Amino acid sequence: MATPRPLDLVIFGGTGDLAMRKLLPALYHLHCDALLTPEARIIGVARDSLDDDGYRAFSREQAQRFLGRDFRADDWQTFADRLAYAQVDALQADSFGTLAERLGQRPEGQRVFYLSTAPSLFSAICRHLETARLVAPDSRVVLEKPLGHDLASSRQINDEVGRHFGEEQIYRIDHYLGKEPVQNLLALRFGNALFEPLWRREWVRDVQITVAEQVGVESRGDFYDRVGAMRDMVQNHLLQLLCIVAMEPPASINPDAVRDEKLKILRALRPFTTADVATRSVRGQYRAGASSGQPVPGYLEEPGIARDSHTETFVALKAKINTWRWAGVPFFLRTGKRMQEKVAEIVINFRSVPHSIFGVPSSPIHANRMVIRMQPEETVDLHLLAKQPGDVMQLHPVRLNLDFAEAFRSRRLEAYERLLMDVMRGNLTLFVRRDEQEAAWRWVEPIIEGWEQSGERPKPYTAGTWGPSASSALPSRDGLCWHEEI
Amino acid sequence: MATPRPLDLVIFGGTGDLAMRKLLPALYHLHCDALLTPEARIIGVARDSLDDDGYRAFSREQAQRFLGRDFRADDWQTFADRLAYAQVDALQADSFGTLAERLGQRPEGQRVFYLSTAPSLFSAICRHLETARLVAPDSRVVLEKPLGHDLASSRQINDEVGRHFGEEQIYRIDHYLGKEPVQNLLALRFGNALFEPLWRREWVRDVQITVAEQVGVESRGDFYDRVGAMRDMVQNHLLQLLCIVAMEPPASINPDAVRDEKLKILRALRPFTTADVATRSVRGQYRAGASSGQPVPGYLEEPGIARDSHTETFVALKAKINTWRWAGVPFFLRTGKRMQEKVAEIVINFRSVPHSIFGVPSSPIHANRMVIRMQPEETVDLHLLAKQPGDVMQLHPVRLNLDFAEAFRSRRLEAYERLLMDVMRGNLTLFVRRDEQEAAWRWVEPIIEGWEQSGERPKPYTAGTWGPSASSALPSRDGLCWHEEI
Repeated sequence: MATPRPLDLVIFGGTGDLAMRKLLPALYHLHCDALLTPEARIIGVARDSLDDDGYRAFSREQAQRFLGRDFRADDWQTFADRLAYAQVDALQADSFGTLAERLGQRPEGQRVFYLSTAPSLFSAICRHLETARLVAPDSRVVLEKPLGHDLASSRQINDEVGRHFGEEQIYRIDHYLGKEPVQNLLALRFGNALFEPLWRREWVRDVQITVAEQVGVESRGDFYDRVGAMRDMVQNHLLQLLCIVAMEPPASINPDAVRDEKLKILRALRPFTTADVATRSVRGQYRAGASSGQPVPGYLEEPGIARDSHTETFVALKAKINTWRWAGVPFFLRTGKRMQEKVAEIVINFRSVPHSIFGVPSSPIHANRMVIRMQPEETVDLHLLAKQPGDVMQLHPVRLNLDFAEAFRSRRLEAYERLLMDVMRGNLTLFVRRDEQEAAWRWVEPIIEGWEQSGERPKPYTAGTWGPSASSALPSRDGLCWHEEI
Repeated sequence: MATPRPLDLVIFGGTGDLAMRKLLPALYHLHCDALLTPEARIIGVARDSLDDDGYRAFSREQAQRFLGRDFRADDWQTFADRLAYAQVDALQADSFGTLAERLGQRPEGQRVFYLSTAPSLFSAICRHLETARLVAPDSRVVLEKPLGHDLASSRQINDEVGRHFGEEQIYRIDHYLGKEPVQNLLALRFGNALFEPLWRREWVRDVQITVAEQVGVESRGDFYDRVGAMRDMVQNHLLQLLCIVAMEPPASINPDAVRDEKLKILRALRPFTTADVATRSVRGQYRAGASSGQPVPGYLEEPGIARDSHTETFVALKAKINTWRWAGVPFFLRTGKRMQEKVAEIVINFRSVPHSIFGVPSSPIHANRMVIRMQPEETVDLHLLAKQPGDVMQLHPVRLNLDFAEAFRSRRLEAYERLLMDVMRGNLTLFVRRDEQEAAWRWVEPIIEGWEQSGERPKPYTAGTWGPSASSALPSRDGLCWHEEI
């Protein structure tokens, strides 16, 4: 657990979007909740020519925007005392002097380097940190996605970072794993005897994992067009969520116990053959349509996008897991931009009762299901049938809230708050290990290659819908349907 | 379902306590909810010299007392139009004339005879009804407990009633089966795929059925002293509840499908040997103590009780069921008068998780359990562990409400309302079949005989407690404890 040593949290990309939108607000909240040690210091690092006061002023302005009502001037004032700035050009070794000076002020400090920059800079940053003797044996480095473009480039990044940091010092962030409902899923599965016996092929009909965005590519077209939904979302977030759902009970919540189990799932994913790519994957690209009632352009009309781009903005997959527990249970994965709603959820569809004693045929509509929602709100719901009070035995669907926010009445932590706490405490459980990341690439690559070899264009779908109709066909071939179609 | 024929509901014991306290109030509520057919008529029958108006006046007075705030003069007025009275001496065949005259007014009516009298009158009533040609092939007879004092007397009553009514015409009331939470238990178990797989020895550690009364013998001492808790409560109510919990899924909720499954459980109850009586049963008798802060006398000081009475006012049993599903799972049954609280509940204690991954040892305190409460309030709760929101993985017990009263917002029916509706509709599912009743006696008798042969007195317990300490010892020998001690 936390050592009482002073912390120096160094954020590379310290003036960037993620730092301003997520990291500083998360740290501010932790500060207000007294979850930061008194001596903890946050050092923003970037190429911009700023001093501490300049960084504080810029951060304050951004914080007012991103914190909204949570911004309280007096709290910010005490928080800003923790902020410092070091101007560094990541590619210039000799520009690390200011940072070295800052960190040298307290050599006994615990150092966390948060690399919120393009991954092309990771190697140089790590190399220069070591050259400047800033890396202690217990320093930590936090890596933000994208961690490579494919297995080879991911390996290269990991090799380069690995030259300067041991694997146990590397924190690869997947912020979906930090979300309260995902945590709660772990607690419900392994803290209760009630769910685990049902958590298997005998009782689960299918699992659906959806991360749907309403936005299009926004200002990131140039980046996105080289990436696509598979690399941007499936390889990391969706597969990580799949692992949390599907893994065997680990021996403990120690990092490697959990990550070993996740790795076993990634390695047990049935590889896609060329035929599978045609029948069990759908890639789509949005056309002009409407979002929240406003007309929006198609992907090919967005700024920064090649006019003949084959990049997918939507992916649906039917995955299978070759284990005793999950054999035969389809895991449907789906993610896309310009979808009808902003939804991130895991749906566990249990089988229907094998026989209805109440005289009405059992139907999937009335089957039990657990819905773990991360977006738009954070909830865990269990859908059951109960008797309607009255003189006859009539069953009606009811929804049980399992996240107990009201029962506890304590503030929920944002994903980044939790994950930053874990980094500071040295808890790797919710961070992705190198072998996991590479196993995910190994599974994803043949699908991307299959698409490229087919020469087919992504299937068009209208912005503001649930993707191409081929997506609905994916579960319907098994007599199933996506959750929102129930 | 309901035929639109006019109904004649004849209540023997029509001026008695049950009729006034439960039956007429239940019928009044059904009337207000328009659940009685317009032509339905209620004919009170007793020896008292009353005419229709006299019966209405008496009923009105009693209804004001027992309905309390639910009494509305205008509703009562329309309800009272259904009331009629016939003076009958059950032992005098020629006194059935008035009743015959009343029923003869509409020979096409559906007749229900509710025998709310001492069982010693059942035989005479049935015989005289038939002699007076009042029993049609589809007439129904409702029998209130006690249905005999042992297997032999129960058989005798069943034989006598059976001479005049077929088994499919006989409705043996056990009002616990009419309670909403018991109904809900059936819906939860068999309407959802989630519970049934767990409903067995692999996942259930023990089951506890408690019917605890706060009152003493009240004015019924003379009756109670000849009966005792085993005959008054265990043989009927507790064993019926046990059957509902333990039965295999019936093929349908048709009466005989359900009753066949209940019967199988009663026949699978492991018989008590003489040694078992000593080690797996506890009988108690209350001594002076306090109830709700007021001093109360002991059982032997109550009016109507023999000063050297051995009658038990408390029973606790550890029952076992010889089936694949339940082998090795103790079913603890407990009932008593002058207990600390008024509680009727079924507790399903699930096993602890086999291994705690969260670093805290798994403990029975934190095991999941389902609590089906019939008294003092009607609820079904599921006790789980959930993650406390926050930055660390801490599990805390939470309680999930599974009866969804708020979700439905419709009025619950009282047990007698539901059961009367079932009688009127001809639905026997919730009524006890002759073979069930006799199987229950067959299991209970050796325990009573064992007590008598032992010559031991019931163990004393102080009024206002949970019974003799030997009761706590019953589960504690298995390392378990009663629900209220958790």
